Amino acid sequence: MRHFDCVVIGTGPAGQKAAIQAAKLGKKVAIIEKAPVVGGAQINTGTIPSKALREAALHLTGRNKRGLFGSSYRVKKDITIADLVAVSDEVIRHEWEVIRDQFDRNNIELIWGEAHFEGPNLIQVIHDDTSEMITGDKFLIAVGTRPAKPAHVPFNNKDILSSDSFLKLEALPKTLIVVGGGVIGTEYACIMATLGVRVTLVEGRNEVLGFLDQEIADAFAYFMRQSGITLRCGEKVEGIRPLAPEEGNGRSIHGSLVEARLESGKTLRAEALLYCVGRQGVCKRLGLENVGITYDDRERLRVNENYQTLNMDDKDNPKPVEHVYAAGDVIGFPSLASTSMEQGRRAVCHAFGVAVEDWNQKLFPFGIYAVPEISMVGKTEKQLTDEGIPYEAGVANYREIARGKLLGDDQGMLKILIHQDTHEILGVHAIGTGATELIHIGQTCMALGGKAEFFINNVFNFPTLAEAYKIAAYNGLNKLALVV
Amino acid sequence: MRHFDCVVIGTGPAGQKAAIQAAKLGKKVAIIEKAPVVGGAQINTGTIPSKALREAALHLTGRNKRGLFGSSYRVKKDITIADLVAVSDEVIRHEWEVIRDQFDRNNIELIWGEAHFEGPNLIQVIHDDTSEMITGDKFLIAVGTRPAKPAHVPFNNKDILSSDSFLKLEALPKTLIVVGGGVIGTEYACIMATLGVRVTLVEGRNEVLGFLDQEIADAFAYFMRQSGITLRCGEKVEGIRPLAPEEGNGRSIHGSLVEARLESGKTLRAEALLYCVGRQGVCKRLGLENVGITYDDRERLRVNENYQTLNMDDKDNPKPVEHVYAAGDVIGFPSLASTSMEQGRRAVCHAFGVAVEDWNQKLFPFGIYAVPEISMVGKTEKQLTDEGIPYEAGVANYREIARGKLLGDDQGMLKILIHQDTHEILGVHAIGTGATELIHIGQTCMALGGKAEFFINNVFNFPTLAEAYKIAAYNGLNKLALVV
Repeated sequence: MRHFDCVVIGTGPAGQKAAIQAAKLGKKVAIIEKAPVVGGAQINTGTIPSKALREAALHLTGRNKRGLFGSSYRVKKDITIADLVAVSDEVIRHEWEVIRDQFDRNNIELIWGEAHFEGPNLIQVIHDDTSEMITGDKFLIAVGTRPAKPAHVPFNNKDILSSDSFLKLEALPKTLIVVGGGVIGTEYACIMATLGVRVTLVEGRNEVLGFLDQEIADAFAYFMRQSGITLRCGEKVEGIRPLAPEEGNGRSIHGSLVEARLESGKTLRAEALLYCVGRQGVCKRLGLENVGITYDDRERLRVNENYQTLNMDDKDNPKPVEHVYAAGDVIGFPSLASTSMEQGRRAVCHAFGVAVEDWNQKLFPFGIYAVPEISMVGKTEKQLTDEGIPYEAGVANYREIARGKLLGDDQGMLKILIHQDTHEILGVHAIGTGATELIHIGQTCMALGGKAEFFINNVFNFPTLAEAYKIAAYNGLNKLALVV
Repeated sequence: MRHFDCVVIGTGPAGQKAAIQAAKLGKKVAIIEKAPVVGGAQINTGTIPSKALREAALHLTGRNKRGLFGSSYRVKKDITIADLVAVSDEVIRHEWEVIRDQFDRNNIELIWGEAHFEGPNLIQVIHDDTSEMITGDKFLIAVGTRPAKPAHVPFNNKDILSSDSFLKLEALPKTLIVVGGGVIGTEYACIMATLGVRVTLVEGRNEVLGFLDQEIADAFAYFMRQSGITLRCGEKVEGIRPLAPEEGNGRSIHGSLVEARLESGKTLRAEALLYCVGRQGVCKRLGLENVGITYDDRERLRVNENYQTLNMDDKDNPKPVEHVYAAGDVIGFPSLASTSMEQGRRAVCHAFGVAVEDWNQKLFPFGIYAVPEISMVGKTEKQLTDEGIPYEAGVANYREIARGKLLGDDQGMLKILIHQDTHEILGVHAIGTGATELIHIGQTCMALGGKAEFFINNVFNFPTLAEAYKIAAYNGLNKLALVV
């Protein structure tokens, strides 16, 4: 029976970085993957495919160049699913290689199969007809999540799809219903609208992406509608069904028609429906009972500040299972590849007694790869107002910035929230080309204690979008009558 | 006779920001422009046109998408000068409007015509047949530079061109000689090569862009050659002439043939030649003798640390002309739009007694909009070695980063130079997509005293190019055996 210092279950972002960290600490590491490929949802069904789809859609439609080449500019006229999937597949293949290569270089043993605990330090890995028992000192559970698939939604891998199967669409539908206005739902809604699909987005809450700063959220809602998306916020879906041929199905080019009934009485019809409300852990088959770890009703794990799993049988007195850690989507919020990686690394450092610096969780950035891109770090105006922190907002519009024009982006904006007294930066909110990159300048400034004056006195390359920080700082300090 | 608190000569970046700053201080401001349009070289002949050309070339050729769509991918097959100039003109028109609007909003009096000093506080502005005398308390000279046009180069606005007239080319040549491997020469060489023009770049020094970090410069030289550019470094041009019809001229599609003879005996022939060695001030007609200011043999002004002009008649004892400031290209290095703007603002603040914070000139970024983009801040490896500062380099390659792949950039890289003992960031060097933007994260970190560990502990959006900082920090600290 093979023994490892560290056994990682799952090859998504959390698992990858954890395994690499353990290997770099000189530990003997195994990483177990039950899917036929490495990378988890990040590479195969989630982050990367949707971003590749987005890049391909923006480029092939010419959408991101219309500010320069005119409003009817298109690069390719008839865009097929094949065009899009080809790009996605190319990127996915490359990422597999990168991950496999990292495992190889670090002597990490990649074991294919489904793992479950047989005892506190014993795992069985089952792969087709074979199985192997391995033992380990420390374990990390990084099994991720899968889309929630409620029983009342008749998923069929054809025209009623979850985000995991969405790219299996045989052809681009002319019309699409997206149920769920979270990050995944809005990203796909925007990408499909960019491709000319008529999209209706249904969200139970009164707004999509409720965590955004209101000004950015309003701008985003405006841009979504401008791109042809119908927003149905504050609406719940009561039932979903494929239409029968006698109801009109089969008539469309796409060959399908789906119906969603809303509680408000409205009926929506489209050629396809993407259901992306909620995701849930995949813990049931992990044999966690054999090691004393509990999971919640959405199969998610609870961890302490060291990412050690908890037994929640006594809710008032959770007991850590000290040698078994968990990281990534399976432990819930924020469920971002970026944070999952760092969680995995920190878990392993703790497991092997290596100190890591504190990290400022208040400065986690959020990136939404919609059309346009959105990103934020720090607090929103509403949060600051609720907390009674006096601030002023400084705004820069891309259209005032030469590179905004050069990139053909007349819509983008960057907003910095400045403490009225100390001039500290309290939050940065951006929507537009490159927003997810741009945010890190503000994040770095916040982390290192810079103030709004830093942006005034700093020299930025010209022409860059980064200049937006200077313009926003002027705008904010001007409002405070502090600079002229 | 109209009187102004502040009179600015020239509407380029230095003049614009100076005028706006003075207006915001409540001053009555005039700004004088002798060209028929505002913006100076930045908008009309230099920065913006070449960047617009670059964006158009990258997009229309599909050059920046070949990593995703395949090596022979093209968006448009027959690209004409008209395609390119249309994009450039659109951006230029927009920038004119932005500048005019800023002048209007700030009640800045824009006076068209050529200005010269008649006395210490008296300026005459001549416009066609009319002229106006105005007086002022403070003056800023921001007249910029023009391409040096040595007598031995037979410029003809047809096929032997300076950078100011380059976009007047009637058609894209099949072959091009670029004389001068400075920023302008290399940018145009790369853009033209992207468009499929066979380019030979002649540079008198032994390398192009000698101020770059050697590793970046080497990579850049490699990429230039890969894109079909022939580099002739360490070669001087002895003579340039258009060929006569009997020598083969008129045979090419472009209709012209030009010859450059090198001192080494080589003869180069191409359909067009771009000469961009040196630029010089335009001070001769400013009547500076009437106010006691001297200029050098390239018509450039000297200023003190407050941007006050100097009388250099006694070189050992330069005398400031206290009420006349100068900023921008006319005062020489670094001659970047980004720094010129800030110089103009600082000059005016000094003129009206407003304190400004120190600025760290060591943290000026450099951005080169070549193909690929290049940017740097702080010191190079050679500078650090020469100064005896112990450092380690941490490198991240875009091909290891998901967004690099998503953007189709397999070549890009980011390097951070880390002090071996303190782990301060001493320099950041980047080549690749978005380099001019990306550099500001490192610049902000350097300005605010962050160390390499900051990048390790920071969470970056995924997928972004900004992740390169984390990978580079790991790489550097790993080499120092400080992180594992």
